[in-house]
Amino acid sequence: MDYFPCALEVLIDKFATLPGIGQKTAQRLAFFMLSLPDNEAISFADAITVAKKSVSCCEVCQNLTDSDRCVICRNPRRDSSTICVVSDPKGVLAIERSHEFSGKYHVLHGVISPMNNVGPDDIRIKELVQRVTDSDVEEVIMATNPDTEGETTARYISRLLSPFGVKVTRLAYGIPVGSSLEFADDATLMRALEGRMEM
Amino acid sequence: MDYFPCALEVLIDKFATLPGIGQKTAQRLAFFMLSLPDNEAISFADAITVAKKSVSCCEVCQNLTDSDRCVICRNPRRDSSTICVVSDPKGVLAIERSHEFSGKYHVLHGVISPMNNVGPDDIRIKELVQRVTDSDVEEVIMATNPDTEGETTARYISRLLSPFGVKVTRLAYGIPVGSSLEFADDATLMRALEGRMEM
Repeated sequence: MDYFPCALEVLIDKFATLPGIGQKTAQRLAFFMLSLPDNEAISFADAITVAKKSVSCCEVCQNLTDSDRCVICRNPRRDSSTICVVSDPKGVLAIERSHEFSGKYHVLHGVISPMNNVGPDDIRIKELVQRVTDSDVEEVIMATNPDTEGETTARYISRLLSPFGVKVTRLAYGIPVGSSLEFADDATLMRALEGRMEM
Repeated sequence: MDYFPCALEVLIDKFATLPGIGQKTAQRLAFFMLSLPDNEAISFADAITVAKKSVSCCEVCQNLTDSDRCVICRNPRRDSSTICVVSDPKGVLAIERSHEFSGKYHVLHGVISPMNNVGPDDIRIKELVQRVTDSDVEEVIMATNPDTEGETTARYISRLLSPFGVKVTRLAYGIPVGSSLEFADDATLMRALEGRMEM
């Protein structure tokens, strides 16, 4: 691999550190970057620097923002008494897409995962407890992913919040809208039966 | 999508311009970039800028280099009388991996492709003709990809070089080593039969 100039090797190695990008793809991306006009490549590099410098976490909900508070926390029309807890900023986007939630969020930036050495203190749980202590929160909706780690995190937080007398709910499990029963897995069907509602 | 800070949106859009990277992957890469320590993110950005600034084309063979001439053109032990023509720098890497070629290269930076509006003047063909005119070249090996465009380009260059009395050869078509006849396609088998050699 010493037939490429050193700076190109470095760039390929950098791309290869990105998640889901292997050596071949990294090569392709690095070559593409070199083939771009100068100003476009520089503006790509600038986008990284600017995003890294200007984006931080909202002091209230820990969502990503470029000021002290994120757009949702600054919006006076959002209901502060309901907090939806998600594991990462992409969760906020997903819930917002449903147009069904008008409360505020709390972004944990991770889930409890003993396998990956992530404990309760490594994610933003204490900030959530602080919010519940400090303000008039009536309901906390746990919207972590429906997998083992998301479930563990939801249960942990639920138990942590029980002394505060706040209502803690969890997104419903069930069959996805528009899907087919035939392809639903056993665990999902079991949960859908358990959670059946009167029509 | 206005729940993310502007700088993050810009970064996601930048990643989405890379080949083979869709909107979801671009989001994942941008989030990953933000999760990196400051110095690592900055060094990623720097790698792009440095590569873009320092890497140019070798004045002889058009391969990528960080000086006037690439490592292969500077190597006095490489045979200047044989030129292997490849469509891009990755071709050089592929041929070098075979450890079978000790001549020099010529990188076209593309192939003739009327569908994509790429004509003979858009790739480095005239530089190759100039090399053949100026120096003592005995053989030009066409190692463009074995597809329609690579074949067209090889034939075009072969015809262009015929007045110079230089021997123009093409990589052999045939069944790949270690493969199975069962899975070889018709065109490959036809070419393998045509090119059969005495044992």
